[in-house]
Amino acid sequence: MKTIGIGVIGTAFMGKAHSIAYAAAGTVFGGSLRPKLEIVCDQSPEIAEAKRKEMGFERCTSNYMDVINDPKVELISICVPNAVHKEIAVAALAAGKHVWCEKPMSTNLADSQAMVDAAATSPQKTIVGYNYTQNPLVHSARDLIREGVIGDITGFFGVYDVDNEADPERPYSWRMNRELSGTGANADVMCHLVSVAHFITDSEISRVVGEYDIVYADREDPKTGTRKAVDNDDVCMAIARFNSGIKGTLRVSRVAWGRKCGLSWEVHGSKGMIRFDQERLNELQLFTQDQDPRQQGFRTILSGPYHKPYDAFLPNAGHNLGYVDVKACELNQLLTAIDSDTTTWPSFADGLQIEKVMDAIDRSAMAGQWMDVE
Amino acid sequence: MKTIGIGVIGTAFMGKAHSIAYAAAGTVFGGSLRPKLEIVCDQSPEIAEAKRKEMGFERCTSNYMDVINDPKVELISICVPNAVHKEIAVAALAAGKHVWCEKPMSTNLADSQAMVDAAATSPQKTIVGYNYTQNPLVHSARDLIREGVIGDITGFFGVYDVDNEADPERPYSWRMNRELSGTGANADVMCHLVSVAHFITDSEISRVVGEYDIVYADREDPKTGTRKAVDNDDVCMAIARFNSGIKGTLRVSRVAWGRKCGLSWEVHGSKGMIRFDQERLNELQLFTQDQDPRQQGFRTILSGPYHKPYDAFLPNAGHNLGYVDVKACELNQLLTAIDSDTTTWPSFADGLQIEKVMDAIDRSAMAGQWMDVE
Amino acid sequence: MKTIGIGVIGTAFMGKAHSIAYAAAGTVFGGSLRPKLEIVCDQSPEIAEAKRKEMGFERCTSNYMDVINDPKVELISICVPNAVHKEIAVAALAAGKHVWCEKPMSTNLADSQAMVDAAATSPQKTIVGYNYTQNPLVHSARDLIREGVIGDITGFFGVYDVDNEADPERPYSWRMNRELSGTGANADVMCHLVSVAHFITDSEISRVVGEYDIVYADREDPKTGTRKAVDNDDVCMAIARFNSGIKGTLRVSRVAWGRKCGLSWEVHGSKGMIRFDQERLNELQLFTQDQDPRQQGFRTILSGPYHKPYDAFLPNAGHNLGYVDVKACELNQLLTAIDSDTTTWPSFADGLQIEKVMDAIDRSAMAGQWMDVE
Amino acid sequence: MKTIGIGVIGTAFMGKAHSIAYAAAGTVFGGSLRPKLEIVCDQSPEIAEAKRKEMGFERCTSNYMDVINDPKVELISICVPNAVHKEIAVAALAAGKHVWCEKPMSTNLADSQAMVDAAATSPQKTIVGYNYTQNPLVHSARDLIREGVIGDITGFFGVYDVDNEADPERPYSWRMNRELSGTGANADVMCHLVSVAHFITDSEISRVVGEYDIVYADREDPKTGTRKAVDNDDVCMAIARFNSGIKGTLRVSRVAWGRKCGLSWEVHGSKGMIRFDQERLNELQLFTQDQDPRQQGFRTILSGPYHKPYDAFLPNAGHNLGYVDVKACELNQLLTAIDSDTTTWPSFADGLQIEKVMDAIDRSAMAGQWMDVE
Repeated sequence: MKTIGIGVIGTAFMGKAHSIAYAAAGTVFGGSLRPKLEIVCDQSPEIAEAKRKEMGFERCTSNYMDVINDPKVELISICVPNAVHKEIAVAALAAGKHVWCEKPMSTNLADSQAMVDAAATSPQKTIVGYNYTQNPLVHSARDLIREGVIGDITGFFGVYDVDNEADPERPYSWRMNRELSGTGANADVMCHLVSVAHFITDSEISRVVGEYDIVYADREDPKTGTRKAVDNDDVCMAIARFNSGIKGTLRVSRVAWGRKCGLSWEVHGSKGMIRFDQERLNELQLFTQDQDPRQQGFRTILSGPYHKPYDAFLPNAGHNLGYVDVKACELNQLLTAIDSDTTTWPSFADGLQIEKVMDAIDRSAMAGQWMDVE
Repeated sequence: MKTIGIGVIGTAFMGKAHSIAYAAAGTVFGGSLRPKLEIVCDQSPEIAEAKRKEMGFERCTSNYMDVINDPKVELISICVPNAVHKEIAVAALAAGKHVWCEKPMSTNLADSQAMVDAAATSPQKTIVGYNYTQNPLVHSARDLIREGVIGDITGFFGVYDVDNEADPERPYSWRMNRELSGTGANADVMCHLVSVAHFITDSEISRVVGEYDIVYADREDPKTGTRKAVDNDDVCMAIARFNSGIKGTLRVSRVAWGRKCGLSWEVHGSKGMIRFDQERLNELQLFTQDQDPRQQGFRTILSGPYHKPYDAFLPNAGHNLGYVDVKACELNQLLTAIDSDTTTWPSFADGLQIEKVMDAIDRSAMAGQWMDVE
Repeated sequence: MKTIGIGVIGTAFMGKAHSIAYAAAGTVFGGSLRPKLEIVCDQSPEIAEAKRKEMGFERCTSNYMDVINDPKVELISICVPNAVHKEIAVAALAAGKHVWCEKPMSTNLADSQAMVDAAATSPQKTIVGYNYTQNPLVHSARDLIREGVIGDITGFFGVYDVDNEADPERPYSWRMNRELSGTGANADVMCHLVSVAHFITDSEISRVVGEYDIVYADREDPKTGTRKAVDNDDVCMAIARFNSGIKGTLRVSRVAWGRKCGLSWEVHGSKGMIRFDQERLNELQLFTQDQDPRQQGFRTILSGPYHKPYDAFLPNAGHNLGYVDVKACELNQLLTAIDSDTTTWPSFADGLQIEKVMDAIDRSAMAGQWMDVE
Repeated sequence: MKTIGIGVIGTAFMGKAHSIAYAAAGTVFGGSLRPKLEIVCDQSPEIAEAKRKEMGFERCTSNYMDVINDPKVELISICVPNAVHKEIAVAALAAGKHVWCEKPMSTNLADSQAMVDAAATSPQKTIVGYNYTQNPLVHSARDLIREGVIGDITGFFGVYDVDNEADPERPYSWRMNRELSGTGANADVMCHLVSVAHFITDSEISRVVGEYDIVYADREDPKTGTRKAVDNDDVCMAIARFNSGIKGTLRVSRVAWGRKCGLSWEVHGSKGMIRFDQERLNELQLFTQDQDPRQQGFRTILSGPYHKPYDAFLPNAGHNLGYVDVKACELNQLLTAIDSDTTTWPSFADGLQIEKVMDAIDRSAMAGQWMDVE
């Protein structure tokens, strides 16, 4: 058992989720690499210090290079806005640190490619925070599919609806500006859906036709009190072809009232179907034919210790994992990779492939025609 | 109270559903026009006679012109394969009969147009059997939307999955042949979804990009024992723009294991959302914001007497209507239109508009590009 | 094919439901005995005439003896308040009519016993309207249980909650008076739950401990404007032993906000479990062990044509039957019994056994101790 | 910020759950008292050492007195079989340690009383591990009830079904022996249900009638291969009166196939109803009347940051807490009490009150009559 020094850059939603995962993972998984919370970084020195105390780090800083240069830090979490992921990730890899980077990797393909290049020349491990693929039940779903339980995959259909921006009275923000934040729902939520599509089908999207909708054309700018045009997508829709030959649809919205984490997907197969809804992350729906039609129906499978590594948390089924537990599973995959020199999914290279799909959707929506994924 | 003579052409699923509706509607709705089962028609004289006895008609025939020419018949149900709808409907209207025609209207736009033309020059009433729009709860949903309960409509998203052809071992049939039956899932199930989209949004689809998937490229021909190519769609997907300005997606499959009547749809609004799943046809999901966020969530609304005309069947909520009851609601709309000279929805003209969308999807899928609805 | 003349006594909820069932049953089931709506009775001559027209009867009356003495009437529906069931049923059987009597049979055991005695000396058929046992899916559930799908039955647990009287502002009525209407929720809803318990377990309750709760001790008398004491049960609870050796619980309420037809029950078995909720009457939940624990869960079985006689209505699964359809199934059982001289369930004798359980619960609740069912 | 030294006695399900909670709580809640994993105890020295490494404790022992006497330990978790809770708890309190004791407190009232007495004379804090009351959503439910959202409470109805012993082929164990483990499902699961009943209703059960069922009378003894009689309850049922005047039912089973953590309960009120199912621990069902009946139904409320302290884990709703997170909430209550000298619920005194109800149910089931809670 040896420790691994941790630095976390960013202290909001994801900064905290990573920190909790680091704090708990050792006790949960009992692995030989034990995270130690060394240093946390926030742009604001006051917040940095407050978060250091709250989350239990040894040190804090408002300069992310302090994290990168910290000799006690071996693994760095990047939990800051997407536009600065690249510079941090490239520097961290150059400094010989492993990197756990939140999704999406960056705001443009060139940056993401630079991250992949940096990773390619480094022996360090990388993982992108597409946590909805890390749920033990979702891993089990993929295993069942690989084992042929639903036969050959015949289609993938997914939705990710949230209501973050559903209220038309929500003020204008940088998130609604294409220049500042890139695409809207495409970057923010479609990326998650693509990660699931790639993971669960063991295949990648190769061609798409996409369409955007800017549902609320303008919003009040809180600084000026005037209306300001929104120029990125509230809704993003795509029809997709996968390189395995299957087809499917993907649809996301950031203006879908009532859906809080409404990521739901179906994998259709020649012998059955699997359905999943992230708002009930401990349930999997499975249909397979039954010899007696009077008995056939979708099964609601509750997560249990046979859905590894649920058993690291709990020995009994039906007791429920939470979002943060799944984040710990994600971390555990990375720690295992570091410790045993195995691969992660999604690495930076896998993450880039996801972003190429988002890019193709963007180009397709802009051009109004089908586009190949690069 | 006076009777209206009924003739039913076709005796399978829909022929029987119409007949039950005719038998029950008088007692349920207490209207002044009371259906009387005069004559039933099936190609096979033996089946015609068996069905006459079973379903309680006075007479039967194997020649549909006997129904059309029957002087006691005032209203004719067309429940035969789509390819012969036109000739029967045109003849029936010419003979001065009202027509209740099953969906879709025909196998091509020219035929459907001919039916519309025939209806346009006739004082008789027509209705197309898009029964999923006739559910009292769906009517109530539209009323709530019109009243502004979810604000302005911002999107429509629908799915209709069934597993009729999900088993790859199902033999080849005429349904899988484009020449004999037209498109596949597009004609069979997408039409229903479009009917709901038009009805619930008070708007019509004006432009689409569509895509097909022939999931099982060939099937065994039961006559020859050899594999025969399937040339129409198992899966049909579309992104749509509506003439009201909203956008949405529509997706259907006839190879979706486990989904028996998997028509589900969502209307997104600026103040809330409505969701519906036909497999639970007595439940509506409604989200609107609550002042206290601790209390907000989707409501599962059970159908009740305040969802008119549920009250014609039952005085108490939560007791459930069935598919056949909804078919009786559909009939009631037609009888009311005949009796009071009001309009129906969807008339032949409305039905044609639905089929133009299917046609645009078909053209788009074939050409691989966006297409306007004609 | 021959007709059977029908008389319906009572025109409210149940009078109408019976009438719709009579109107539809011939066409649905195609049986050889076809109901003909001869005469309807309501205490009020005006309502009687209005309902005759609405529901399509030949004649009407305000004197139920006219129905009993009508030579064209062979089968009589009793859909009036429980207190007068006995006199009508006894007279109807004496006049050689078959009887379809709504539940519960009467307001006291002596009356119910008199009905059983009258039926015992008559060749005519009787059935009591415990319609929740007549759902094809519930019949299928019992079949599956009998076939051993869930092993030996180990327990029955049921609830029936409604909100008819949930509002404390609801005025006082005769239903809240023990003298006028007997017990409250016990008579009104517990009887349904007991019918299901007996039906689904193939067993009868033999000993109980019961408890009442009068949740709202008094209500405003609309005639006088003063508060009047409620003296029968809003809530009725019991622990039960069955003569097969199993045990269970039954619980009902008429003051349960939000539950419209909240009859739900579970049969526990040595190899599995079956659960059912009447508000989703087209779904059955079945759990049986799976060899692969990753795949095991409750199945949501949608009603389909293999759940006989669903197929008399619809050839496709998942299309949903409604309350009135189930009432037609109930009628069909009676018509079949009349036509083929087979037995019904629940006959008057079976109904009496249900009421003896309610009586034992009542005695137990009053005495505060366990009681044998007589 | 100061640390608090932790000792955990017992390393199975609960020992690990406590340890994870200790590891994570500091980072999650940012409180001023930070747990430090000092020493872990297991009867087996090998397991103790293995668990020390796995879970990250400084030291280990196979003698629980080493934990109690450890000067660095201030707070002790008791996660061993119920029969030894008392001796450890009394010793720990005598040694001036705070105690987090798993449920139920002991196997008999005398022992539990001794624990209460020890706590009464100690300034230290105690809490019993009735974690299902610690869910933020359940706390919010109680707040809403206290605020009058569902009016006056009119009833409590609960079930807790699990399938731990559902398989009749499961071998005989000490859990099935009254002498060794006390009552069966009563002790194991009913206690949880009583804790919820007391918590959510702000009231206590004062009188009960209970009934047991030993569903599988004997099981194979793995040591001898012969059948051995089971003499404690597989199923435990009760009707209850509360000291607030309301009534209700409680029912539990350890032989209920398919239910993994099937704790579900309802609070009925004069203006609405709240329902909860632990297998979906992030959802609350709330019904209140709506002015427009077309819109009324149960709301499915997803847990969110407004359900405090969900916000300590996650800023966004619908992302789900898990079982272990709720255990951390439980711990946080205890740490806060220690730090600010506030009270906990349930303390040992509250826990004793729960066990008195279980005792009354036991006496009632044995005697076959109503019993007062002592």
